[in-house]
Amino acid sequence: MNAGKSTALIQVAHNYEENARHVALYTAGIDDRFGAGVVTSRIGPQRPAKTFDGALDFFAEIASLRGVSCVLIDEAQFLHAEQVRQLHRAAHLLDIPVICYGIRTDFAGEPFPGSTYLLALADSLEELKNICSCGRKATMNPRFDERGERITSGAQVAIEGAVEYRPMCARCFYAGLVHVNTGGAG
Amino acid sequence: MNAGKSTALIQVAHNYEENARHVALYTAGIDDRFGAGVVTSRIGPQRPAKTFDGALDFFAEIASLRGVSCVLIDEAQFLHAEQVRQLHRAAHLLDIPVICYGIRTDFAGEPFPGSTYLLALADSLEELKNICSCGRKATMNPRFDERGERITSGAQVAIEGAVEYRPMCARCFYAGLVHVNTGGAG
Amino acid sequence: MNAGKSTALIQVAHNYEENARHVALYTAGIDDRFGAGVVTSRIGPQRPAKTFDGALDFFAEIASLRGVSCVLIDEAQFLHAEQVRQLHRAAHLLDIPVICYGIRTDFAGEPFPGSTYLLALADSLEELKNICSCGRKATMNPRFDERGERITSGAQVAIEGAVEYRPMCARCFYAGLVHVNTGGAG
Amino acid sequence: MNAGKSTALIQVAHNYEENARHVALYTAGIDDRFGAGVVTSRIGPQRPAKTFDGALDFFAEIASLRGVSCVLIDEAQFLHAEQVRQLHRAAHLLDIPVICYGIRTDFAGEPFPGSTYLLALADSLEELKNICSCGRKATMNPRFDERGERITSGAQVAIEGAVEYRPMCARCFYAGLVHVNTGGAG
Repeated sequence: MNAGKSTALIQVAHNYEENARHVALYTAGIDDRFGAGVVTSRIGPQRPAKTFDGALDFFAEIASLRGVSCVLIDEAQFLHAEQVRQLHRAAHLLDIPVICYGIRTDFAGEPFPGSTYLLALADSLEELKNICSCGRKATMNPRFDERGERITSGAQVAIEGAVEYRPMCARCFYAGLVHVNTGGAG
Repeated sequence: MNAGKSTALIQVAHNYEENARHVALYTAGIDDRFGAGVVTSRIGPQRPAKTFDGALDFFAEIASLRGVSCVLIDEAQFLHAEQVRQLHRAAHLLDIPVICYGIRTDFAGEPFPGSTYLLALADSLEELKNICSCGRKATMNPRFDERGERITSGAQVAIEGAVEYRPMCARCFYAGLVHVNTGGAG
Repeated sequence: MNAGKSTALIQVAHNYEENARHVALYTAGIDDRFGAGVVTSRIGPQRPAKTFDGALDFFAEIASLRGVSCVLIDEAQFLHAEQVRQLHRAAHLLDIPVICYGIRTDFAGEPFPGSTYLLALADSLEELKNICSCGRKATMNPRFDERGERITSGAQVAIEGAVEYRPMCARCFYAGLVHVNTGGAG
Repeated sequence: MNAGKSTALIQVAHNYEENARHVALYTAGIDDRFGAGVVTSRIGPQRPAKTFDGALDFFAEIASLRGVSCVLIDEAQFLHAEQVRQLHRAAHLLDIPVICYGIRTDFAGEPFPGSTYLLALADSLEELKNICSCGRKATMNPRFDERGERITSGAQVAIEGAVEYRPMCARCFYAGLVHVNTGGAG
């Protein structure tokens, strides 16, 4: 969960502001690692952001914004399906760009509901690359406990702190799961 | 549903065969518009293909192939979630490229289960572009009846014939749905 | 030179025409393998096309078109630098999409002038993939004679017939050139 | 010249180092805005880097590196053509990833020699997006003087300080040049 999503978000916000334009930033209320309502890049920069939970109607929210040229959303895997629909309708009916940053799958390799709808509806998809410890491109997000042991069961959402996520390629991800039932893995 | 997926699949098969390599082709048994087990490009070319249904274990299937350099799957939105997992594991543990062609969402703008897992797990995602009748990029696949009337309810799967699908941009897709409840559209 | 550029061009033309729109097709006059003024896909389909040479002013040409929704250009590596500039200005000042298909480098790994300007100015770049005989992604276009011997000197332009081009990855391209001076290869 | 290239480079370096791997950073000696040998992101972070000039043989340089998993090059438009060839050969024959960050065209819309070879040879091309003051995607880099007047003649290289570069879309770029001869613009 370290590929540079928050860095990219903060850079895009900067690009707009260099052009004297305003942006609106949102992040999941669920994640308060760095304090609620902060987008934090691991290479340093931070930005305050509004938080969202599942109750926020993003279409109404965006329709109420004034003078905003772009909506930027971090931790977008935590969006609910209907919120992605709201964002999609807002982008196309209110004519405002919406850029969402998130991960595709959870620690067990299962899609997040928010990511499912983002990947299904987005007008363009862009990958931020990370690497596995073996050197290959990482696409998976396995969970580890404090002793470095891989955790293969539990809730989909467990914010870093007690647990740790590491970028991993699919080969290492499955090779470490030979005797483990990960649901869809058959 | 006309962006050129089958054309692209047939071209990739040709590229491999020009290099004296073999490919294995699969398409959904559900779709027999052009005869069961045929991948058909709308610009002309056709190729025979094995058909799959939900009972096929793709990991075992691919492990049993001999001398095949690439697996190509058309109508991949009809894959079951666990079949996408099998394909993902085969690609990475058996070290054989698997290329899947499909659409992201159904006539109501809802993700197909197969597409959900493909978009979540694929190592790379590539868009085949089509255009809306308004000239914008088409990303949606609304359904129309024989008289050209838009159909906004019904089963997710209805193969062309009695109905027709047209590529449409999101703006036209939602604008034509103002008074319609499409589930997640709120 | 076989990745499917002409196939992709013919598919895009088909997509526009399915939407009751017209396209204008151009190909290099220099290439008459399949007859002057024909775009030919190796998987079968063909389309007639106007031919261009270095004397054609593409801005004036496109400004004179009536009722055309998209301009499609095959063998675009043979465009002159100023013609790419004309196409770029036409796309942005006349507001008509221009899609060019070509290869990046010649048999010696040197850029074509047309490709240099296309890669420098294009609003979006998309790769059509091919494979090397070793199985890696091909990005180079080495030339071979009728006996299958690699040719490492000669003119940049030598249309297939007497010679043959094969898709090759960079590793095989350079490994086969150890004792050969290919200019910039130092 | 502000799309986030240096930010992206610093993030990739961080990703490798989080995996306990080492990277080698280079930037053009020509650019000492922020001090020679510093890669500086406009959103804050900085990293020291070796500087290169046209005399550096990158193949020999990379062959001499020990324990480096990735080579990162900023201001790559200033590479000489033969240096890009050296980097390309190093990536494929020494099997080390090389990632170069640069701009495609100069203030007059003409390609940089380094960029020409990078765009021609790179195994993959990725765009870092910026916006024009009109809101469209910026792809051009026009030059302005201290009073904000556009400069349409001069040397290809003029490091910021006395002059300023602004991201601009092609439409605004050409619209502001109606009466100006920019060489290839005809």
